[in-house]
Amino acid sequence: MFSKKLTTAILQKNSRVCVGLDPRLELIPEKIKQQAIKKHGKTFQAAAEAIRVFNRQVIDVVAPHVPIIKPQLAFYEQYGSAGVATFEDTVAYAHDNGLLVIADAKRGDIGSTSQAYANAFLGKTNIFEEEKAAFNADALTINPFLGEDSLLPFIDTCQKYGKGIFVLVKTSNIGGKDIQDLEVDGKTVSEKLAGMLNKHAGNYSSDEKYTNIGAVVGATFPEQAKGLRELMPRSIFLVPGIGAQGGDLNSLAVFFDPEGLGAIINSSRGIVFPKEAQGQDNYLEIIEGKAKELKEQINEVVL
Amino acid sequence: MFSKKLTTAILQKNSRVCVGLDPRLELIPEKIKQQAIKKHGKTFQAAAEAIRVFNRQVIDVVAPHVPIIKPQLAFYEQYGSAGVATFEDTVAYAHDNGLLVIADAKRGDIGSTSQAYANAFLGKTNIFEEEKAAFNADALTINPFLGEDSLLPFIDTCQKYGKGIFVLVKTSNIGGKDIQDLEVDGKTVSEKLAGMLNKHAGNYSSDEKYTNIGAVVGATFPEQAKGLRELMPRSIFLVPGIGAQGGDLNSLAVFFDPEGLGAIINSSRGIVFPKEAQGQDNYLEIIEGKAKELKEQINEVVL
Repeated sequence: MFSKKLTTAILQKNSRVCVGLDPRLELIPEKIKQQAIKKHGKTFQAAAEAIRVFNRQVIDVVAPHVPIIKPQLAFYEQYGSAGVATFEDTVAYAHDNGLLVIADAKRGDIGSTSQAYANAFLGKTNIFEEEKAAFNADALTINPFLGEDSLLPFIDTCQKYGKGIFVLVKTSNIGGKDIQDLEVDGKTVSEKLAGMLNKHAGNYSSDEKYTNIGAVVGATFPEQAKGLRELMPRSIFLVPGIGAQGGDLNSLAVFFDPEGLGAIINSSRGIVFPKEAQGQDNYLEIIEGKAKELKEQINEVVL
Repeated sequence: MFSKKLTTAILQKNSRVCVGLDPRLELIPEKIKQQAIKKHGKTFQAAAEAIRVFNRQVIDVVAPHVPIIKPQLAFYEQYGSAGVATFEDTVAYAHDNGLLVIADAKRGDIGSTSQAYANAFLGKTNIFEEEKAAFNADALTINPFLGEDSLLPFIDTCQKYGKGIFVLVKTSNIGGKDIQDLEVDGKTVSEKLAGMLNKHAGNYSSDEKYTNIGAVVGATFPEQAKGLRELMPRSIFLVPGIGAQGGDLNSLAVFFDPEGLGAIINSSRGIVFPKEAQGQDNYLEIIEGKAKELKEQINEVVL
């Protein structure tokens, strides 16, 4: 089951870091891009090929230092179906290198459509009387705006295939307050969601402390995270928002349980596209160094 | 601009119907599937090919009777990047046949990621110093759970490229109430969203009554639709939920303005996969008949 695999990998690598793979073509080394253009011209195919090569290089160097990666679908969809094919390659290559994968897609829809998304990312699709996995991620981020019934197909699919979800509870952006901080009967929407998710987590038939029903809680709101941590004792937190978005490393302890488990901290640009690496031949060394450095910084705060 | 194009097409075809193209492989005619399997084996490639062929047939017969189609991304993503390539083909083929296209993807994320989704579906992506459209839809459905700042890149992209968005305001499912019906200061979340969207619509520099900022309002809640129609006089409503979900055709008038404009009614399974068409050689005649019939039924209620 996903939560068990993740906790095991966190302990083995002593790392609570998730690397966000949000490719930015303009920041990928020129040499990789020129080779892709030579093959495919200035096409989406070439862009997708350059990202594929770069992602594999990044996975090679970060794999020893992190348990999990998180490709953000938007940055692949920008390049059409060719970009989505690179997303597939990145998931498979990460698995080959012993990494877990969260598809950051923030999907969510009415029941029958949520089921199709669950099939696409976590489960299997029936084609011609056979069952095949499409994207085969280990976990998926979910947008709960359509309510509890929109989440059930994802929860069922997690049960069936041992996969995980991270439901948006408190996002890292300022505008997150517009809906998530609204208060009804003394509870914010985030707190209501936390209660609802914890009810499903409570139904989980597992001896493990953590279930496959996780939550996204932004690093930019540690005060709220503290309360949410208490409301969702069996949910792993996926924590975006450090670095460019302003989340403070020193405030991260509240996202974890007293044993230093129950959360992973995402960093995308800070690890994959640091300024120091731009235009440098040894960019992979620098990327590896950034992953190691963040791992150690977080452990210092948390352990 | 999208809203103008849509209104013009509605008047030209005298049709307020949107055909939802949510492919269900098991319901596609056997002959199409066998040909695809012969070419590609029992693969996602074959599934995607069968859907591509079927969608083109459907587009051929419904194009004279409807202004717009709405492919639902989940049903393409189920087949991986091959399925997404079929989505691309369907958009292009619909355009070739004079139809507008809403990508029903319910995307939404923090600003920089929303921008990437806006590039993917509505705008253009910069690759190697050139700007290219990836999916090139005319409009996109948007999930507003991350708040106002998550919507701004979509609104900006609509302005720049003359495209449209339909923001989820009141969804057709029962669970929609969990967040959307919560009341704060005497207003539901849906009503608050309506006010916020109408503010942006008000900023629209256009002589047209309707702007590119539309809303999704489920056919299953006509009482609420009435109030939302008043709160958003410049937003076109995309109305899902008739048929299988229980929305009543006779209650649809409240979604429209007194001139019978300002809304499109979606039907997916009811048109594309009616029971009567299953296993029949003349399935395309039946599909065409269903599109015409719904067009006339809606006009009777609305005009």
